[in-house]
Amino acid sequence: MESLIRASFARQGVMTNFGVVMSRVERGAVELTLPYRADLTQQHGFIHAGVVATVLDSACGYAAFTVMPADVAVLTVEYKINLLRPAEGERIVARARVKRAGRTLVVCTGDAFGVTGDTEKAVATMLATVMAVPPQDGMKH
Amino acid sequence: MESLIRASFARQGVMTNFGVVMSRVERGAVELTLPYRADLTQQHGFIHAGVVATVLDSACGYAAFTVMPADVAVLTVEYKINLLRPAEGERIVARARVKRAGRTLVVCTGDAFGVTGDTEKAVATMLATVMAVPPQDGMKH
Amino acid sequence: MESLIRASFARQGVMTNFGVVMSRVERGAVELTLPYRADLTQQHGFIHAGVVATVLDSACGYAAFTVMPADVAVLTVEYKINLLRPAEGERIVARARVKRAGRTLVVCTGDAFGVTGDTEKAVATMLATVMAVPPQDGMKH
Amino acid sequence: MESLIRASFARQGVMTNFGVVMSRVERGAVELTLPYRADLTQQHGFIHAGVVATVLDSACGYAAFTVMPADVAVLTVEYKINLLRPAEGERIVARARVKRAGRTLVVCTGDAFGVTGDTEKAVATMLATVMAVPPQDGMKH
Repeated sequence: MESLIRASFARQGVMTNFGVVMSRVERGAVELTLPYRADLTQQHGFIHAGVVATVLDSACGYAAFTVMPADVAVLTVEYKINLLRPAEGERIVARARVKRAGRTLVVCTGDAFGVTGDTEKAVATMLATVMAVPPQDGMKH
Repeated sequence: MESLIRASFARQGVMTNFGVVMSRVERGAVELTLPYRADLTQQHGFIHAGVVATVLDSACGYAAFTVMPADVAVLTVEYKINLLRPAEGERIVARARVKRAGRTLVVCTGDAFGVTGDTEKAVATMLATVMAVPPQDGMKH
Repeated sequence: MESLIRASFARQGVMTNFGVVMSRVERGAVELTLPYRADLTQQHGFIHAGVVATVLDSACGYAAFTVMPADVAVLTVEYKINLLRPAEGERIVARARVKRAGRTLVVCTGDAFGVTGDTEKAVATMLATVMAVPPQDGMKH
Repeated sequence: MESLIRASFARQGVMTNFGVVMSRVERGAVELTLPYRADLTQQHGFIHAGVVATVLDSACGYAAFTVMPADVAVLTVEYKINLLRPAEGERIVARARVKRAGRTLVVCTGDAFGVTGDTEKAVATMLATVMAVPPQDGMKH
C-alpha cells in the first residue's frame, strides 16, 4: 500500500514543484512536509494559504487512499479550510487522518503546522470529502 | 484602487510562480487567469485542485479588498471549495465577487472555469470569508 | 416529479414542526418558506442560524432531487453556510439551485432571505454536496 | 463564566423547543445533549441533519464564548458540517472545543454522536468560525 501511494505521489507535478516530501504514511494517516520557499509566498512573505491548502488537500487525499481499494482513483470532492495563523517557519507539516470511511466517500481532517526547530504552531485546519472512483470509470490514480 | 490592488498582487510570490495574470478588476469583483502549466498538475495531468483553490482564494481576497479601506491588510479567514470537474483547458479563469461586505468580514463567492477556445466549463466553486485587519495591527497588504 | 418531491417533503417531521412550506419547485431549483416563529429563535430573538441552515439544507436536498432518478434516496453529504445578517423578517425564504449534477453527487447553492413586505435581505448562503443513494442500498426517499 | 453561559443558553428559544440540555461546560469546551424526538426527523425517521447542525452550532458558539470576554455578543460567522451517518440513537450528544482563539474570531470543531446505551457512533463533524462582537455594537449575548 505504501509503495503504491508513494508512486502516485511522485506523479503529482505540483508536489514536485513545491518540493513536498511524504514524511509519513500509515493506514488512515499521512504526513507531508513542505520546506519554506520564498516563491510560494503571499504578499507578506508567509507561505500562501492556497499552497498550505494544496499540501493539506494532498495529505487528506492520500490518507483517504490508504483505506480505499488499490484500483480506485481518488478525487477530492470538496474541502473547507480555516487559516489559523500566518504560515511561517522552516517548514510546513501537514497531517491528515481519516475521520469516517464509507464505501464511496471518505471524510478526512487535516492540520498544518509551521515548524521551526522544536516549536510547532497550528497554521490551518481542514475538513475534506474524498471520493473513490472505480477503475472502469476511466481514470487511474 | 485598481493600481493599489495590482501592486499588492505583483508582490505575491506564488502568483508570479504560477504565472497568474489579473485579467479584470472592478469594485466588488476580480478575475484572475492561469495559463495551463504541466508542473502544476496532479497525478492525472489536470491542474491540481489546490492550485485552482489558490487562484480562487486570491481572487476572493482581492475582490474583498476592492470594498475595504485602502490601508487595511486582507486575510483569508477560511474558505470552502467544491471541485466540480477535472481542471483542464488552455487556461483556468477564476472569477470572484463580493456577496456581503461587513465592516470586518467580507463574504465572497468565486467560480473557476477551464477555458479552451470559446468553451468554458465550471471546474470549481468557492465560498470564502475574508477579514480586514487594521493597519495598526502591524501587517501591510 | 413535483408530486414525488412534495410527498417526500410532507414526510419530514422537522419541516412540519417548523411550519415550512414548499413555495416553488422546478427542475434544478426549489424554494422553501418559513414564517417567523418565536420558538425557533436564538438568544437575541432572531431565527436561530441552525434553523435557517436546516431550511436551506432541505432546499438544497430537494433541488438536487429534482435532477436525480426518482428511485434514489437523497442524502446531504456536507454543507457550508455563511451567516450574512441576523435572520429577521416576517418570513425566511430559502432558494436553492443545482450548480453541478454528477451521477452520484450533486452540488447545490442556496440563499436565504429575511423578507418583510416587499423587502428582501440576504441572511445566509450555503454551498452543499448531496448524494444519490441507489434504492438497493436500503433507504427510501 | 458557567452561570453566564447557562443563562444565555436558557434564552435560546430553539434549544428549549428541541429539548436540548447543556450537559457539560468548561473553559474551551461545551457538550449539549438532544434526546430523540420524532418531530425533529427527516423523511426516514432519523434526526434531521439541520437539527444536528443546530445543536453542533450552538455547542461551537458556547465553546467559543467560554474563551471570550463576558460582555461580548457571540455570532456564528460560518460553519461547515459533514454528515457521517444517519443520526439515530436514544440521544444525540454534541461536543465542541476551541481550536484557535483569536481576539475577534474563534475557530471551533465539534463532533456529534448518536448514543444508545453505552454505544456512541459519530454522526457529524463541524468546523466553525465564531465572532466576538463588542458590546457597543448594540447586541447582547
